[in-house]
Amino acid sequence: MPIVTVRALEGRTVEQKRKLAKDITDAVVKNFDVEADRVLINFFDMPKQNIAKAGKLNIDQ
Amino acid sequence: MPIVTVRALEGRTVEQKRKLAKDITDAVVKNFDVEADRVLINFFDMPKQNIAKAGKLNIDQ
Amino acid sequence: MPIVTVRALEGRTVEQKRKLAKDITDAVVKNFDVEADRVLINFFDMPKQNIAKAGKLNIDQ
Amino acid sequence: MPIVTVRALEGRTVEQKRKLAKDITDAVVKNFDVEADRVLINFFDMPKQNIAKAGKLNIDQ
Amino acid sequence: MPIVTVRALEGRTVEQKRKLAKDITDAVVKNFDVEADRVLINFFDMPKQNIAKAGKLNIDQ
Amino acid sequence: MPIVTVRALEGRTVEQKRKLAKDITDAVVKNFDVEADRVLINFFDMPKQNIAKAGKLNIDQ
Repeated sequence: MPIVTVRALEGRTVEQKRKLAKDITDAVVKNFDVEADRVLINFFDMPKQNIAKAGKLNIDQ
Repeated sequence: MPIVTVRALEGRTVEQKRKLAKDITDAVVKNFDVEADRVLINFFDMPKQNIAKAGKLNIDQ
Repeated sequence: MPIVTVRALEGRTVEQKRKLAKDITDAVVKNFDVEADRVLINFFDMPKQNIAKAGKLNIDQ
Repeated sequence: MPIVTVRALEGRTVEQKRKLAKDITDAVVKNFDVEADRVLINFFDMPKQNIAKAGKLNIDQ
Repeated sequence: MPIVTVRALEGRTVEQKRKLAKDITDAVVKNFDVEADRVLINFFDMPKQNIAKAGKLNIDQ
Repeated sequence: MPIVTVRALEGRTVEQKRKLAKDITDAVVKNFDVEADRVLINFFDMPKQNIAKAGKLNIDQ
């Protein structure tokens, strides 16, 4: 039961998540040899003020 | 200091979380032999569009 | 599909995890009103050198 | 900077992870419109005794 | 590419996150010997009803 | 009770983790205005074959 978690900047549409969920699931099924209905995916929409790189929040970049 | 994280579909009431936090803590204390005040629990309320199974978002199932 | 993650100091036996997995699942089923076979649990066994509290690693406490 | 975390039963080969990392990255680039070098992936290899479904450890199923 | 995740009670200001992101990044650079632009930080703002200690939700403490 | 999780390439020494745990805790205390003994840190040592960037495992870079 692979569990895939995707953290990405908020703002993606439902349609984008819908397609990514499908593609990631296909990739896990193909490469890890599991049935699709055992693959779970969780998305976390990260606000710009909650992500930092190189010590700077995304809102400051 | 066990840390328990619960990701579940959003919509659960505070009372449901209150009871589950109590029951999980009791279970950890009993089975892992730690004092209750060392058990931390975090809930993440997952929107339907952020969970997928078998390649399909929860809102499409 | 609730996903429960338990991070605890390494050293727990399989039997301890077996019982805790059962008890946590029962607690989720009872309080969050889901079927048992939708509840997933992941344990992470944390080495003493990988946990810190109050700025001190567990091996130094 | 999407961060993708994959928790799956241990035992997958490096080659399997290599291919899955490639495929997931391609999927994120295509659907979330980011450059490939911003996509990070982390795998966690879960021992059978550390995963449970329906209240039963994987080693007992 | 160290990934640092901070879960804390919601209510911190952007300025508090801005400074903490800077300080944590500096600490990782200094102690783990990596370049700053490889250090990623994610904050999760936890509502009071989603955190429990000793079996009690934060809102009940 | 801030919980800080650090995922980094394996190979860091205990001394490196000891110092980073201290520095991160100090940073959280200073910026998030909490007492030190409420700050928890977890390290995850990531094998080279379990980290990927730009679709390539760390062992292939």
